[in-house]
Amino acid sequence: MNPEKFAATEAIKQLKARYFRYMDTKQWDKLKAVFTADLVADFREGPGDLCHGRDVYLDMLIGAIGEATTVHHGHTPEITLLSDGTAAGIWAMYDIVDHPQFLLEGWGHYHEKYRTDSDGNWRIAELRLTRLKLNFSDKKSPR
Amino acid sequence: MNPEKFAATEAIKQLKARYFRYMDTKQWDKLKAVFTADLVADFREGPGDLCHGRDVYLDMLIGAIGEATTVHHGHTPEITLLSDGTAAGIWAMYDIVDHPQFLLEGWGHYHEKYRTDSDGNWRIAELRLTRLKLNFSDKKSPR
Amino acid sequence: MNPEKFAATEAIKQLKARYFRYMDTKQWDKLKAVFTADLVADFREGPGDLCHGRDVYLDMLIGAIGEATTVHHGHTPEITLLSDGTAAGIWAMYDIVDHPQFLLEGWGHYHEKYRTDSDGNWRIAELRLTRLKLNFSDKKSPR
Repeated sequence: MNPEKFAATEAIKQLKARYFRYMDTKQWDKLKAVFTADLVADFREGPGDLCHGRDVYLDMLIGAIGEATTVHHGHTPEITLLSDGTAAGIWAMYDIVDHPQFLLEGWGHYHEKYRTDSDGNWRIAELRLTRLKLNFSDKKSPR
Repeated sequence: MNPEKFAATEAIKQLKARYFRYMDTKQWDKLKAVFTADLVADFREGPGDLCHGRDVYLDMLIGAIGEATTVHHGHTPEITLLSDGTAAGIWAMYDIVDHPQFLLEGWGHYHEKYRTDSDGNWRIAELRLTRLKLNFSDKKSPR
Repeated sequence: MNPEKFAATEAIKQLKARYFRYMDTKQWDKLKAVFTADLVADFREGPGDLCHGRDVYLDMLIGAIGEATTVHHGHTPEITLLSDGTAAGIWAMYDIVDHPQFLLEGWGHYHEKYRTDSDGNWRIAELRLTRLKLNFSDKKSPR
């Protein structure tokens, strides 16, 4: 494993770190820049949709969590550099969505693909969330 | 620190990532391959047993969590490569065992030793779990 | 990115790992050694104070959590080596303070600066905690 590969692995870890941080601090423009324009994001185990395109995904996301306090944490990345200059990754994850109307707490894994842009910076090109466990409570329920 | 040492450190991090992922997705055959045959696993602060041998440990594990939804997360690894070609590691951890009969939520540290097999792949040879905090609730309790 | 930079990045990750571990296992003398003497620690979003000096911070800390069971976890470090031989870092975090009088559970980010000491070992020189979410319950409240 040569220094270029270490640099790529660390760069992808920090890319995902920014994904989490920009999402939870609602820095939507900076969040947009972590994705390729043709992002495919599959949150059907989510809750969420299958989104084709970064703009479609961001519209879905901001509609879903724009009013919520959120926490998204990623753990124990398994980054694999592929022969064609792309990369794959799996991350264990935990999230909270504390929305005015509901509280969601979930655990699962992100399965991802990464690609460099014209400036050589890594971006998230594909993202699929699988779930181990999902707790949901409706704040509007009668008590 | 030379490139070989970086590669070993990253390989051990990904080894432990697979340990977590194969356990929580119940891929028992793949989980088996992350351990040496002579694994010593000490879960006496667990809850669990002191197990000598990978097969003894896996029998104990599958009996304990085979029917449960589980989440195991590892954080902030402290990997140390030792002079004899082995390695030591400490991981902060969190786990959930959501079993039909009980719910367990715990925090602590894994204290581990690693060794390469005949193919040069790192495996977990020793594993001891210490606990900071353990929440247990019996689902059969009268409400 | 050269091997020296990888070694520094990994050393800072392990420095922060010891910060978490020594705090939660109450190894105060070892915890002291992860900081510079002129540490600036800002826990005003905490709960906590703005502390100038490692000794002031440790007095505050031990007073606040000495009697509590605590868990502090750090995630997805963004470590940046700066041109002047110092470094900056951002860590996602989660903590529990289970005190005889209250239970606190929080999520946020550490924003940090690091500096090497006269032996070339990295230490935490500045630390500021921002919060996404903080749950607090008073154990003395009437039920």
